[in-house]
Amino acid sequence: MHFTSEQNLDGGVLERAFTLGEIPGILWTPAPASAPAPASGSAPAPAPLILLGHPPLGLHRMYPRLVDRARQAVADGFAAATIELPGSGDRPRWGALDQARADMRRAVEAGEPVSDEIVDALVLPLVDKAVPEWRAALDALLALPEIGGPVGYSGGVISIGVRLAAVEPRIAAAVLFAGSFVPRAVFEEARRVTVPLHVLLQWDDEGNDRQASLDLFDAFGSEEKSLHAHMGGHTGVPPYAGEAAARFFARHLR
Amino acid sequence: MHFTSEQNLDGGVLERAFTLGEIPGILWTPAPASAPAPASGSAPAPAPLILLGHPPLGLHRMYPRLVDRARQAVADGFAAATIELPGSGDRPRWGALDQARADMRRAVEAGEPVSDEIVDALVLPLVDKAVPEWRAALDALLALPEIGGPVGYSGGVISIGVRLAAVEPRIAAAVLFAGSFVPRAVFEEARRVTVPLHVLLQWDDEGNDRQASLDLFDAFGSEEKSLHAHMGGHTGVPPYAGEAAARFFARHLR
Repeated sequence: MHFTSEQNLDGGVLERAFTLGEIPGILWTPAPASAPAPASGSAPAPAPLILLGHPPLGLHRMYPRLVDRARQAVADGFAAATIELPGSGDRPRWGALDQARADMRRAVEAGEPVSDEIVDALVLPLVDKAVPEWRAALDALLALPEIGGPVGYSGGVISIGVRLAAVEPRIAAAVLFAGSFVPRAVFEEARRVTVPLHVLLQWDDEGNDRQASLDLFDAFGSEEKSLHAHMGGHTGVPPYAGEAAARFFARHLR
Repeated sequence: MHFTSEQNLDGGVLERAFTLGEIPGILWTPAPASAPAPASGSAPAPAPLILLGHPPLGLHRMYPRLVDRARQAVADGFAAATIELPGSGDRPRWGALDQARADMRRAVEAGEPVSDEIVDALVLPLVDKAVPEWRAALDALLALPEIGGPVGYSGGVISIGVRLAAVEPRIAAAVLFAGSFVPRAVFEEARRVTVPLHVLLQWDDEGNDRQASLDLFDAFGSEEKSLHAHMGGHTGVPPYAGEAAARFFARHLR
């Protein structure tokens, strides 16, 4: 993990760009000057970490929303980090993924049902490649002295969040955002998720099957899971819903 | 409205029992000593009011849960009040209601589907009688100098909450708890509700049809409505769900 740039943001947030091998990422932590005063010269306590998931649109395009979420996380006493998804942003194009996206778009625009084959071709390779990358990022991030556990995962492609919560024991809680097609295989993995979950659903999300989201929520194996449905389309999540998600992490990661 | 007794509870809460004609009720307000110091001798500002709904089991039996909710309301700067439902507690028995309850119990215990006729016979007379009583209580409560608007309604028989929110313009926001059979006529009234709603659903509520609750949520006409589903049975609402409902009222009544 190599830091490639850093800047201080308003509100006592230190933003550092990094690369992990070929993968670009961003880490947000409390700026040292604003960190709590260490007792008798010792370093400040390591902060719990929230991994910020995002859709495969590239970190540049997602940056404004990511930095808002990161500011909230740091204000709540956490570090936050994200990495670029395979085939997105400045990473090499991924022909098979582009093809699967084009197939999906064609089906949706033609008003055809999106087949399981199309969903699997689009989502499974992304999940298969991205999840090990997020786990590698976790290894590198937790090796930094300013970051400790526990770790939360928030948002982004829900299938990545489900797989990560199912296979990565360091994930202690997750906020998931219903809103993308979920392959049957990932749906089955949802039953193995046991960490506390806070699931957001936009009731009138034009790009999301409401009943499929309710079924997925029902399938999660977690003893503590809650579903928060709000009015509006995919990008219409109200501000108080973000605050409620922040309180969920505060309950489980502190 | 006649006050029949009063006592000071821990935490600066004044509890007063009252009668409104034949109907017993309870009012909780900040104890005068703990009210904010009035500027230059004027009375403290009137507090917004939350009406505390409850199931038809009698105020005595419901008191422990009601007083918890009232304490939260007063701590948040509100007054809280409730009245006895018709046919419950110390009010005269209501033969038709008892009969409808027995029919419902018989159907449930026999594993038979609960027919629309049984639901209508049980719930509609209760709604028809209770809603005007809650409105009369609102007239009396809002005439007190220590109580002002806006008014919220919280919990209890969801059909009463729906009708009240649909017909009473002084209700500015409502927290509704999915969990009782809703007559078709009340379901249709839900479309006329336009105030902000915070709807709680217990995902595994043995006495509640989950799909019917989701359909009712969908039917509400309110532009701002959110559904909060948590694990567990009817009485298993987690404490953080109560806190979220309190924040909903703080957003809309202050």
